[in-house]
Amino acid sequence: MTTVAPRKLAHAPHPYFRVDAAELTIGGVAVSTLAERVGQTPFYAYDRAAIGKRIAELRQALPPEISLHYAIKANPMPAVVAHIAPLVDGLDLASAGELAVALDIGANPAHISFAGPGKTDSELHRAAAAGICVNVESEREIRVLAAYSRARGIRPRVAIRVNPDFELKTSGMKMGGGPKQFGIDAERVPQVLRDLAGLPLDFVGFHIYGGSQNLRADAIAEAEHKALELAIALSADAPAPVQLLNIGGGFGIPYFPGEQPLDLKAVGDSLQPLVARAKQALPQAEVVIELGRYIVGECGVYVCRVIDRKVSRGHVFLVTDGGLHHHLAASGNFGQVVRKNYPVLVASAVDRAVTEQASVVGPLCTPLDLLGDRMELPRAQEGDLIAVLQSGAYGLTASPQGFLSHPAAHEILV
Amino acid sequence: MTTVAPRKLAHAPHPYFRVDAAELTIGGVAVSTLAERVGQTPFYAYDRAAIGKRIAELRQALPPEISLHYAIKANPMPAVVAHIAPLVDGLDLASAGELAVALDIGANPAHISFAGPGKTDSELHRAAAAGICVNVESEREIRVLAAYSRARGIRPRVAIRVNPDFELKTSGMKMGGGPKQFGIDAERVPQVLRDLAGLPLDFVGFHIYGGSQNLRADAIAEAEHKALELAIALSADAPAPVQLLNIGGGFGIPYFPGEQPLDLKAVGDSLQPLVARAKQALPQAEVVIELGRYIVGECGVYVCRVIDRKVSRGHVFLVTDGGLHHHLAASGNFGQVVRKNYPVLVASAVDRAVTEQASVVGPLCTPLDLLGDRMELPRAQEGDLIAVLQSGAYGLTASPQGFLSHPAAHEILV
Repeated sequence: MTTVAPRKLAHAPHPYFRVDAAELTIGGVAVSTLAERVGQTPFYAYDRAAIGKRIAELRQALPPEISLHYAIKANPMPAVVAHIAPLVDGLDLASAGELAVALDIGANPAHISFAGPGKTDSELHRAAAAGICVNVESEREIRVLAAYSRARGIRPRVAIRVNPDFELKTSGMKMGGGPKQFGIDAERVPQVLRDLAGLPLDFVGFHIYGGSQNLRADAIAEAEHKALELAIALSADAPAPVQLLNIGGGFGIPYFPGEQPLDLKAVGDSLQPLVARAKQALPQAEVVIELGRYIVGECGVYVCRVIDRKVSRGHVFLVTDGGLHHHLAASGNFGQVVRKNYPVLVASAVDRAVTEQASVVGPLCTPLDLLGDRMELPRAQEGDLIAVLQSGAYGLTASPQGFLSHPAAHEILV
Repeated sequence: MTTVAPRKLAHAPHPYFRVDAAELTIGGVAVSTLAERVGQTPFYAYDRAAIGKRIAELRQALPPEISLHYAIKANPMPAVVAHIAPLVDGLDLASAGELAVALDIGANPAHISFAGPGKTDSELHRAAAAGICVNVESEREIRVLAAYSRARGIRPRVAIRVNPDFELKTSGMKMGGGPKQFGIDAERVPQVLRDLAGLPLDFVGFHIYGGSQNLRADAIAEAEHKALELAIALSADAPAPVQLLNIGGGFGIPYFPGEQPLDLKAVGDSLQPLVARAKQALPQAEVVIELGRYIVGECGVYVCRVIDRKVSRGHVFLVTDGGLHHHLAASGNFGQVVRKNYPVLVASAVDRAVTEQASVVGPLCTPLDLLGDRMELPRAQEGDLIAVLQSGAYGLTASPQGFLSHPAAHEILV
């Protein structure tokens, strides 16, 4: 067994998946065997042991005082959520649909939070009825929850989601700083907190989130420290001690050539003084790091099959049964300004020598349907399996599955 | 009643939808009444009469000898396809899923074609069993169909999809010219045609397609004439007379500020000499223009509701219950390099004066979830309905509906 290094040297080596008898294995099972077990391609396979390892690495690196939450939005497959829930300290939701998943797998409502800028009245009522914490993002949400509390005699637990006056530097997605739809502007929070005192709501703390998909430990550390200091400052006006402080996450994974994995030890080390400062200034606060992509992103793979090998004007196209309708992000059409290749392998023949440049495309009638653009690959034939790595997060659910009415992809946890 | 002009002057006026009692109407019904009839927001509404008008305009402009096909991929809602099918001369498919829709609504297989670069063996068998025409895109597809014909005694009808040596100028999506996964390279087609003569397949013609979403009549005319000339040249090696010639479509609609509608009369005029030339050189050929977006794109609207009005650091955000999970293209994340605003209206108050700059966002935890970026709009309140125009094509099915597990959007044909 050897560690899988994606063929294009500039992609970071994969930390978990291994090659056995020249085939990529997921959860110890050869990808061709998985394809038979699923009964079709394409499919997503998530590796149970890899997820466990990733969480263990996080526990090892982060101070023990830090709570670790899983953000379901990254991968809401119920089996995945059920596997992760007992390994972490809580779950974070982005919709009432995710609430249903969390409750069905038996997660404890005391350790569930719900954030999102556009919660409907119905979603707010469902969250309150379930007894989870609502990260309120506007004064309207506070009004709706207070009215519910008066009508039903159930006191909702609320944290204030703050739109900070800083943002996570070099983050893939900026979520704070400047005018934003997320949270309540930091400068308005003191008044909101004073108003809360007169409302039938249980204030529990703050949610402050600077961005996502960051590969720089120093930038993450800086954002976390700023989040803590902002929470400490805001706590002066809070109607009760801060019991919960979600300082976000934003830990990135390497997708593209040239990207290096996040230095997790450096992130963990930077949290030691943060924990000390929090203990002193907010002694009752549970400090939460919320991670989605970082927990599952590297633990999943998208597998499709070559159905045609075409050479057009000297250029090799591997036409597969999978494409952007299952994996929009890998096609470069989900928030990317410049399209770059995800790590793509000929999974059924990982050890075959690299002999040609080929593009991996899908079956759709659009040039956007491109999974790998002019990659150095072994010569693949009809029937070979193609794997797109780094596909455990924001894969299937982030894709236009109805586009051109092609068959659905399956999902398995191995 | 007055014609709706989207508030931002630079968007082209809308050709079909009208305002009555200050509300946008679809199919003559006020949008607020439609929302009650659907029972929820968000929803897509498609206007039956508008689709009929658009097809009538096409019939008026195009020479009577031109056949008009509908490309189901643009909008595969069965009610829409059933409405369009009797108004056009045939249907074009991009998958076996679309084949099922076409057969279920009772379309005649004699006037159905199936194109797509990655047809599976199963899809090819299904197409042959249904008796539709397969636009073969590779030598493998020819092999698979010939084997099916020998095994089953059913002779499939095939057209050759040609990857031309030209492309549609200034097209949004380039589908020909250079190395491509679409079709068989023009220079290899003569040999493929000679080989066809010995196979148990019925050759019926060619499919030559240069690109899509083009707003320039001269560019479309040029591509159509080139397609015809290429077909005439290739026909020299054909095993039978050309009966079917699909010269593509690519007619665009104006989405963004500054874009002008296609000059349909100019396109129609340019087809007169083409029809004459085809009659002389390919006397048995039915010449087909295949349109999807142009038929339905302007006849549909996406409607969502303002659930929160937030002012963050001086910037107004209308947070709606709809977003990129239902309408990826309007968020600027589907193949667009630079994000631009679709025409967006406060549909429940179209005549309210424009008084502010606001951004229309969705409920998702991502800054990508943006339907309108700093648009000049009337002051909208919680409960107001927002309409995104130009949403009849590549809307719901081209969107990641499972993203963050929010409720599904409905679709209605009015």
